[in-house]
Amino acid sequence: MEGILRNVKGTRDFMPEEQGLRNTIRRTLEEVFASHGCKPLETPMLQHYDLLASKYGGGAEILKEVYRLTDQGERDLALRYDLTVPLAKVVGMNPEMRLPFKRYEIGKVFRDGPVKPGRFREFIQCDVDIIGTTSMLAEAELISMTFEAFARLGLDVYIQVNNRKLLSGLLQVMGIAEEQAADVMLSLDKLEKIGVDGVCDDLRERQIEEPVIAKIADFLRNGERSLDGLANRYDEQLVQEGAAELQELFALLQEAGVAGEVRFTPFLARGLSIYTGTVYEIFLKDGRITSSIGSGGRYDKIIGQFLGDGREYPAVGISYGLDVILTALTMGDSPFEARSADVFVIPLGTEAEALGLANLIRKSTSLRVEVELMGRRLKKALDYANKERIPYVLIFGENERAAGTVVVKNMISGEERTIRIKDEKDWPSIFTQMQA
Amino acid sequence: MEGILRNVKGTRDFMPEEQGLRNTIRRTLEEVFASHGCKPLETPMLQHYDLLASKYGGGAEILKEVYRLTDQGERDLALRYDLTVPLAKVVGMNPEMRLPFKRYEIGKVFRDGPVKPGRFREFIQCDVDIIGTTSMLAEAELISMTFEAFARLGLDVYIQVNNRKLLSGLLQVMGIAEEQAADVMLSLDKLEKIGVDGVCDDLRERQIEEPVIAKIADFLRNGERSLDGLANRYDEQLVQEGAAELQELFALLQEAGVAGEVRFTPFLARGLSIYTGTVYEIFLKDGRITSSIGSGGRYDKIIGQFLGDGREYPAVGISYGLDVILTALTMGDSPFEARSADVFVIPLGTEAEALGLANLIRKSTSLRVEVELMGRRLKKALDYANKERIPYVLIFGENERAAGTVVVKNMISGEERTIRIKDEKDWPSIFTQMQA
Repeated sequence: MEGILRNVKGTRDFMPEEQGLRNTIRRTLEEVFASHGCKPLETPMLQHYDLLASKYGGGAEILKEVYRLTDQGERDLALRYDLTVPLAKVVGMNPEMRLPFKRYEIGKVFRDGPVKPGRFREFIQCDVDIIGTTSMLAEAELISMTFEAFARLGLDVYIQVNNRKLLSGLLQVMGIAEEQAADVMLSLDKLEKIGVDGVCDDLRERQIEEPVIAKIADFLRNGERSLDGLANRYDEQLVQEGAAELQELFALLQEAGVAGEVRFTPFLARGLSIYTGTVYEIFLKDGRITSSIGSGGRYDKIIGQFLGDGREYPAVGISYGLDVILTALTMGDSPFEARSADVFVIPLGTEAEALGLANLIRKSTSLRVEVELMGRRLKKALDYANKERIPYVLIFGENERAAGTVVVKNMISGEERTIRIKDEKDWPSIFTQMQA
Repeated sequence: MEGILRNVKGTRDFMPEEQGLRNTIRRTLEEVFASHGCKPLETPMLQHYDLLASKYGGGAEILKEVYRLTDQGERDLALRYDLTVPLAKVVGMNPEMRLPFKRYEIGKVFRDGPVKPGRFREFIQCDVDIIGTTSMLAEAELISMTFEAFARLGLDVYIQVNNRKLLSGLLQVMGIAEEQAADVMLSLDKLEKIGVDGVCDDLRERQIEEPVIAKIADFLRNGERSLDGLANRYDEQLVQEGAAELQELFALLQEAGVAGEVRFTPFLARGLSIYTGTVYEIFLKDGRITSSIGSGGRYDKIIGQFLGDGREYPAVGISYGLDVILTALTMGDSPFEARSADVFVIPLGTEAEALGLANLIRKSTSLRVEVELMGRRLKKALDYANKERIPYVLIFGENERAAGTVVVKNMISGEERTIRIKDEKDWPSIFTQMQA
């Protein structure tokens, strides 16, 4: 039987300590999203294959990683690989939808791709998208929401921001031919990680000719890197448009008093085809994880092209990876505690009343109360409470029952007090006093 | 393109109003489970087919409904059809686990079965199980937790309770041969719904002989239905054991002061093979949904047999259906409101400051604040707030900005006040005053 006790490659069980943290992350994000008037949506994990494979879905690369299956009705199905295609489907199926549609979805997606540390085949994405407005206010709101969410999670982040129009314009300035632009963008995207020499090597691997590489290297070594500098130096229309959008965004963020660090990063590209304007990636300031922990951007054309209904659906979104946030929290001093109960009630011949006592304490405090269910004796039960790091134990024997009392023990200080069980209103103060 | 815009049979999108309610249900259950010291677990949706198909999994019936698929590594995989087999796997893979293991999991399961109103192929189960104790305290705690959870959700429920030993004993009393016991149990399970005549018809369809049917009918029409009566009348060992367990459970519930209605239901069977003791089903008192909204029982043998490691894993669990609860809440006067924001800020030429103002209000109140992002004029923006049922609107034009004020409008009463924006501490009282 042991032979079948194994997990599927690229999947894992999340045991209580980690899962408790994941629930905290999920709830924190939901609260921040909701506090900004974003609305929850849940789309199915099972989708028709033709939807996911359509021209404006995730493209050929991602299709290789799709889990495909057939149901009893011989339908050609697949597990969703992101939350964006299902969102586009919902928008298309609900033409009367009121705009803007500010939706969030936190849910599993599936990719049958390479498994690496921290990279799974079944994982949770946390997406917020705002559909229906071209206003840069939407970007500003997503960025503001991001700082708020990570501050609540106790993680200090900065955001790299760029604009795809500006980047395309800079490639024109460098004289990059259109058919090479995609490859060059992918190389430039790595600049922050691998430096100018690394980018040149990467360009060589992509078969870019030496004169082009030399032009790029020259631009990177001597070129202007500030937003205003680029806007002043280059008249190309795309540079001007992209720079103007970014200047508007930075002004909005500043006037709104958004507290957080936003860094203009002129060669940030973020994937290839779907983005049309602002793009951004979120990083931890202390670098304990070097890859980005979230990213997104504006994709004004994709939903309209996908639906092909002649309407426009300007859209901007941001996506966080739940498990990379989990990894970050477990690497540092997490502000969240992992114990699963605050109070442990040990009945000694008083089992039924102990259940009632536990309900009383739950009702009058916000504490989590576990009752000893195994019939263990006092020493073993205390041992369990210790191992579970439960800070308060209530010992409730037959003598206590007869006297209408209970013994409260602070497991950290060792302090014990005999408390009279009179009134549920007393409970909050009992634990507060013993903490002091 | 429209041709691909459809959902897979047996799946649906949950639009914001419903999804908001589902999140409330999930969160309420999580809070109640956690308040009893239960711990969260998340198991993968993708599992090896051989695990799900093993002898002690869900049985041949359910295997017909399994979605099966192959990954790039030619692994034979399937989507989980319940949360119990993955739990048994986790227990087996973690032999050092501290007991009791009180875990909850709320997650998607998949069954390629008949689609009916309220019955989907992809649906969320909410399970709590307590592994490691034979004590009837565990049942009492699950039942107490159930009343607490549904009370918080505003649903009035009762629980039908039976014991499989007692039921098997009663079949012996009726003289049912062992090979017919399974069929007869399935028929008797329907007694509450279809009455004695219905049960007899059902037994005929199952090819049970008329003399046996007559004995059963006689027992049902003239037999004792009270727990104490059955225990007094029949000496059969299984009847005595089952009745003693139930008497212990009822005594525990009463002494613990568990507030809720538990009805002894001697012919409740709950499926066939896995249960070994207590079984229960939860129903709504007002009957707005006639099928059960949750169920469970004790299955002391299954995990041990499944793992085959010679150890015993007594276990008892309960499972609620998230979407049947959703249906119940949407049928009645839901105590939960569906609007997605409490305050709507309409900037008129003051977009950036409006984002800052919204952050200020979020920080100083627990209100959800949405900012107008579409650049709509006042009338259209007010119209949007009305349709979205947002109770408070803040109008923030250039005059207000110059004067350091904002106009607050109560959309229900129509009252408008010009408020000076001084201190974030003022905001909670402003909305309270305007409510009055």
